[in-house]
Amino acid sequence: MSVRKPQILKGFRDYTPDQMRLRVQVIAIFREVFERHGFEPLDTPALEYLETLTGQAGENEKLMYHFHDQGDREVGLRYDLTVPLARYFAMHQQASVLPFKRYHIAPVWRAEKPQRGRFREFWQCDADIVGTPSMLADAEAVSVLTEALDAVNLNGAVVSINHRKLLEAMARLAGVPESHAPTVFRAVDKLDKIGSDGVKRELIATGVHDAAAARVVELVTRAGTSGELLDAAAADLEGVTGGDEAVADLRQLAVYLDDLQVRPGSWKIDLSLARGIDYYTGPVFEARVEEPKVGSLAGAGRYDGLVGTFVGRPVPATGMSLGFERILEVIQEFDLLPQRPSVAAIFVAAFPDTLRENARIAHELRLSGLNTDLSMLSNRGLGDQMKYAARRGIPFAVIAGSGEVQRNVALIRNLASGEQREVEIASLAQEAKLAISS
Amino acid sequence: MSVRKPQILKGFRDYTPDQMRLRVQVIAIFREVFERHGFEPLDTPALEYLETLTGQAGENEKLMYHFHDQGDREVGLRYDLTVPLARYFAMHQQASVLPFKRYHIAPVWRAEKPQRGRFREFWQCDADIVGTPSMLADAEAVSVLTEALDAVNLNGAVVSINHRKLLEAMARLAGVPESHAPTVFRAVDKLDKIGSDGVKRELIATGVHDAAAARVVELVTRAGTSGELLDAAAADLEGVTGGDEAVADLRQLAVYLDDLQVRPGSWKIDLSLARGIDYYTGPVFEARVEEPKVGSLAGAGRYDGLVGTFVGRPVPATGMSLGFERILEVIQEFDLLPQRPSVAAIFVAAFPDTLRENARIAHELRLSGLNTDLSMLSNRGLGDQMKYAARRGIPFAVIAGSGEVQRNVALIRNLASGEQREVEIASLAQEAKLAISS
Repeated sequence: MSVRKPQILKGFRDYTPDQMRLRVQVIAIFREVFERHGFEPLDTPALEYLETLTGQAGENEKLMYHFHDQGDREVGLRYDLTVPLARYFAMHQQASVLPFKRYHIAPVWRAEKPQRGRFREFWQCDADIVGTPSMLADAEAVSVLTEALDAVNLNGAVVSINHRKLLEAMARLAGVPESHAPTVFRAVDKLDKIGSDGVKRELIATGVHDAAAARVVELVTRAGTSGELLDAAAADLEGVTGGDEAVADLRQLAVYLDDLQVRPGSWKIDLSLARGIDYYTGPVFEARVEEPKVGSLAGAGRYDGLVGTFVGRPVPATGMSLGFERILEVIQEFDLLPQRPSVAAIFVAAFPDTLRENARIAHELRLSGLNTDLSMLSNRGLGDQMKYAARRGIPFAVIAGSGEVQRNVALIRNLASGEQREVEIASLAQEAKLAISS
Repeated sequence: MSVRKPQILKGFRDYTPDQMRLRVQVIAIFREVFERHGFEPLDTPALEYLETLTGQAGENEKLMYHFHDQGDREVGLRYDLTVPLARYFAMHQQASVLPFKRYHIAPVWRAEKPQRGRFREFWQCDADIVGTPSMLADAEAVSVLTEALDAVNLNGAVVSINHRKLLEAMARLAGVPESHAPTVFRAVDKLDKIGSDGVKRELIATGVHDAAAARVVELVTRAGTSGELLDAAAADLEGVTGGDEAVADLRQLAVYLDDLQVRPGSWKIDLSLARGIDYYTGPVFEARVEEPKVGSLAGAGRYDGLVGTFVGRPVPATGMSLGFERILEVIQEFDLLPQRPSVAAIFVAAFPDTLRENARIAHELRLSGLNTDLSMLSNRGLGDQMKYAARRGIPFAVIAGSGEVQRNVALIRNLASGEQREVEIASLAQEAKLAISS
């Protein structure tokens, strides 16, 4: 027998049944939150033209899985769900009614160096609103984000909020040349990791004057309540291009968050929040928990430029992306959701003499709505069969050998406690449900 | 503004919200049926080592998307879900309890020529049982298959059943050389398309004698009930290697199908069923409907050799695969499932003066469990907002302008009939639910 070596690519994972049950459960929860907010489901191909994914600038190309297909087209695996949304919108704009609200739950691929908690294949859960500049859309994005985290009992998460134009205006105020704005975003984005001095050093290293670098850090690390920070920013930035607009956006956003009953403690203005992604143009958001220190759980932001690169005219858009893999990590670490040890609620033992009756029992239990595993081990003893059920984590078993079947009864056994009782086969489904729910 | 051309690869599709709602619905139904039968969810990477996918023989390689990744590994997009299951099982056999029952719902990719109804990216829904030679496992595969089709109201589907060893024995009986067995499978597999004469011609063209070819066609096209066909096969094949075993398997399978309450009319023995896939070794199944003539809706079979190519010792396995895309086609063509025209059950109009109250109403409706779309068109008139809701297919709207809000009331409007009535805001959620469910 020729043997293929069973191996899996580095940075890729199998999701075992234990992991998948939780993944399926959390995806269902997020789907429900998205639909509760009126977002429609969407899916797009895993493979796209490489140019669709990278744009003409070829951004991120080295982090993408790309190749020439059999027709010699240059293609790539999608890197995120936002660029495919923009491409989709451009192709379906006639049929789409604006604002277009969609969610997308799907894997993406990145040819990055795998690290602890960072994979080459991972899932994203995005909800976006295309076609309106209204801050109400940004407020909905934050509202969906906080409700999605609440729905998986991640109530401790706090959403930091900032505005790209506010950061730009601050850089301008500090005397940083216009062309250095992206550098400033990237440096400030690392504040948590490298501290104020690190950001200062990085800014100086990229050609920003010492005083300007110090001023940027001073402006973005100011302490205060959300209201105080916005007041201070408004005072500082009066007359600075973009500053007034950014402050007005954030004030409006705060009102809408309040209108949408987003808990005041679940968000805060954080002037140092930059977010790495280049295409953001307005408010940016990031959700974090204090414990465990896994970094960002979800991110969001307005990107009024991206969709237009496919459409040929400006199309405003905003949205949010849940960091599905990290959220799962936290759920598991803190046991935030009740998890089934098996999909099956009940196991039906099988014996050569009574297989027909055992199969019929399994069928009846299934009809009654119980997830039921029928034993395929009728050639083995009861002990082996119970061991199988226990190893699979199935909580209850039904045992009906010839002795029971002759008397029209069956045993329901609790596999954890070993307790069992005899019930009429006619009322078995009902009794099994009672046992399972008690 | 530089414009990227919005385009999608040939053979790939976007799934619009209308399509996705149905896809999500059907996936949830299949998932429920699989779990009802005790199958556990599993997922594996989209990308695998190419050798994992093709084996050393390099089968199907030309139909796979494959390339060298950044680490110069030869990798490919999975072609089906069965080979990844075999690879998974080999890597997780210590942790898996036998028999291992898993389902897998996921996309696969094939670099085939796209045709009507045939795509380069499509979804499969598989349920398999690894680790038992028992025909009860094959019966469970057929039971899951028929219940999955029933669950989407495809009650007219009939599962044809045959056995690879029966076909082999018939070829042997007809005098076809051993080495020609795969040729026979491939030729017989085309019976529906090319007819008896076509199969005969194809067999002759591959070197089978005229008389042997005629005899093969005669044997596999015999008419009769399932019982008659098995009796005839038993008589014909007495003493022919493999024949007795195959007949015994199918007789046992028929008993188990009956034990599992699989409707007698939903399956039949069909001695001409071959199934194209090379790795089948035992019973093979295929579900079809008469109308529309879309071909196979689901296929299944025992493959006792495949898993062993990764494990290094024989591991029996059987399973079934639902042809998700074709099933969707039939559901749509015959309108077999009720479909929501929108995820949102209700739309809340918004006006500049009352936006706070409108947002609060949307929040309350969501809390009550209603999927609610809050208008982002407060800068437009009521007519435009109603047009938006109607185009999105949302059946009801809540209207609360300043006149209503002052009196603590709101209007619930049926967007299809235009009917509306005034209700207290305090009882709005309750009234909206009544309206929606009536």
